[in-house]
Amino acid sequence: MKEKALNSPGFEIDPDLVITLDHGDPLMFEPFWKEVGHNATVTISGWEKMSYYACDTDDICWFLEPDFANEVLRLHRIVNNAATNGCHIIPGVGSTQLIHATLHALASIEARHPVNVVSAAPYYSMYSDINSMKSALYHWAGDAATFKGDDNFIEIVCSPNNPDGMIRHAVLSNNAGKRVHDMAYYWPHYTPMRGPADHDIMLFTLSKATGHAGTRIGWALIKDTDVAREMVNYITLNTNGVSRDSQVRAARILKVISDGYEFPNSNGAGQFFHIGRHLLADRWRRLRQAMEVLGKFSLPRFSTEFCEFFKEQAQTYPGFAWLRSEDESINDCGDFFKRINVLIRSGRLFGAGPNYVRINLMGSDAYFDGFIKRITSFG
Amino acid sequence: MKEKALNSPGFEIDPDLVITLDHGDPLMFEPFWKEVGHNATVTISGWEKMSYYACDTDDICWFLEPDFANEVLRLHRIVNNAATNGCHIIPGVGSTQLIHATLHALASIEARHPVNVVSAAPYYSMYSDINSMKSALYHWAGDAATFKGDDNFIEIVCSPNNPDGMIRHAVLSNNAGKRVHDMAYYWPHYTPMRGPADHDIMLFTLSKATGHAGTRIGWALIKDTDVAREMVNYITLNTNGVSRDSQVRAARILKVISDGYEFPNSNGAGQFFHIGRHLLADRWRRLRQAMEVLGKFSLPRFSTEFCEFFKEQAQTYPGFAWLRSEDESINDCGDFFKRINVLIRSGRLFGAGPNYVRINLMGSDAYFDGFIKRITSFG
Repeated sequence: MKEKALNSPGFEIDPDLVITLDHGDPLMFEPFWKEVGHNATVTISGWEKMSYYACDTDDICWFLEPDFANEVLRLHRIVNNAATNGCHIIPGVGSTQLIHATLHALASIEARHPVNVVSAAPYYSMYSDINSMKSALYHWAGDAATFKGDDNFIEIVCSPNNPDGMIRHAVLSNNAGKRVHDMAYYWPHYTPMRGPADHDIMLFTLSKATGHAGTRIGWALIKDTDVAREMVNYITLNTNGVSRDSQVRAARILKVISDGYEFPNSNGAGQFFHIGRHLLADRWRRLRQAMEVLGKFSLPRFSTEFCEFFKEQAQTYPGFAWLRSEDESINDCGDFFKRINVLIRSGRLFGAGPNYVRINLMGSDAYFDGFIKRITSFG
Repeated sequence: MKEKALNSPGFEIDPDLVITLDHGDPLMFEPFWKEVGHNATVTISGWEKMSYYACDTDDICWFLEPDFANEVLRLHRIVNNAATNGCHIIPGVGSTQLIHATLHALASIEARHPVNVVSAAPYYSMYSDINSMKSALYHWAGDAATFKGDDNFIEIVCSPNNPDGMIRHAVLSNNAGKRVHDMAYYWPHYTPMRGPADHDIMLFTLSKATGHAGTRIGWALIKDTDVAREMVNYITLNTNGVSRDSQVRAARILKVISDGYEFPNSNGAGQFFHIGRHLLADRWRRLRQAMEVLGKFSLPRFSTEFCEFFKEQAQTYPGFAWLRSEDESINDCGDFFKRINVLIRSGRLFGAGPNYVRINLMGSDAYFDGFIKRITSFG
């Protein structure tokens, strides 16, 4: 399926085609970037960015593009979603690499191995996959809520949480343990801004902030210099830096969003988070309606909160829908969606039961529309 | 030190400045790409390449850009340096990630862990660094020539070899062991082409083929489908794919080189490998001259071979100079070069003695010129 067709107005997918909603491909933002047009275009000459080194070799992070760092700081300042003062910025090949880099760094500093990595269920399925990396330094130890070990742990706190969109705080109270805050979804289109997050280790990613998943750029905000150095060591060893041209593109994309707020009308498409929230609100409205007609699943409910970015009471519109079966005849939600040719991710992978499923709401218009149509015709 | 200045005509570095020749930054090719001009420029719109997926999700490698794959195959066909028939192409975040992906894949298939990773000394210093990844699947076991284990090994064969430029063959004859061929330098500017290499696992990298180190793109040619799948699994887990925009840029760069041979005069700069060989030949001539005057170090000697690409007898011009001390008063070459403010990489890191050093010959004009000047004034 060609990705372009999936967002073309009026394009409908074949009723027999599999609708892929099992991963978080954020194609819903593509039409916004089409509207933006040439303002978001990046141009790199053949002789630019050839060196391994993006900045002064004496800097802690030798592969950080200064323009990218500036645009990251600028957007956080505008959105006010993270305290960046005194933080080191470490770019990564997506937040995926940054999770490995963080665990490697924290576990390298710890004397006892393997360090237990935990996260409260339901947790992002990727966290439990870290065992496949076969690191001798750390291993996945499951749900933080049932962890019985001592202080030899790293708790990953994903907030808002993937898969269920809830605001999360660390579950383990032992202060000697270490914490990683995965903030991929702490942006105003998904959730009300409750002021700047201020943690030792915070991870962000372009894919969920702007929709550019194919660019493989994330960033970490790190307070402790030793942790930052160890992360740089890991990324040096693992990939010998992070593509400079991808950082240049990421800087351009972030700039367009910031310009949209600091210089209104600077592009033809409007303000990204406003439009993103509008699109997600519309999808959630249609989803709740369709699920009500179907009468087999329940969706999380979120209370309205004051959003310090939009300066008003605001709703939560997560990028994923976390469905629970309320129909006794459906023990395995995966089977149900398989029957209507929709690919979802089973609750099992998130440390929950098969009576839960995660559905991507950030996909293309054609996939979302097709999904709603199939649900509705089933009901 | 700003990278632009380093290749400006007539620019001279301060006599007190440290000359950095310890890593293989390939800035010597920058002037060629400046000459090429807009033909090598890549332009990516904000709405392009947003999806994680670069091709059909049913393909073995879901993150491979088709244009990049086509240009890789085309350049190998033109240069005739690798048998690509029936190979899977796996892109990586530089060949650095591909080395980890390959070792992970081969060791995953093996039942006994850790698998011993070996390479004949002098070996590329990065190979011995793999222990810092703390994998439970494999570990560095040193010089292949002195390896005493059974068939539970992976031999990395780097040919032409980093650091010494020699053509290499596997040292361990046990056919049950596994082999990885690192072919980063098997291109006509560095060494005569002896026909297409034909191994199960071959690794290439943009940084050494074209000089674009900052783009972090390498590629593997893999015969065995299971190995290819395991590598894709590793890269999925490690970085969730490889930047699509970097692959687009790499495709553009490779295209310019191929066009230069298939459509002469297609750019204003000429033919890349011809010009690259000319530049390297000139550096080697000046280096040999300066070293003769200095009278303290010897350089490797290479026999002339018939190059099937240039269709003539050709010399070898490695990207690194591998120096051996011939002066009894110099036991540690590193100390000698430190005194003249030149940063090199000690032979110790390559499994050789401190009487060896590796010097980058692919650096900027200013660094190379400054190096020759310091050597000559010392002599």
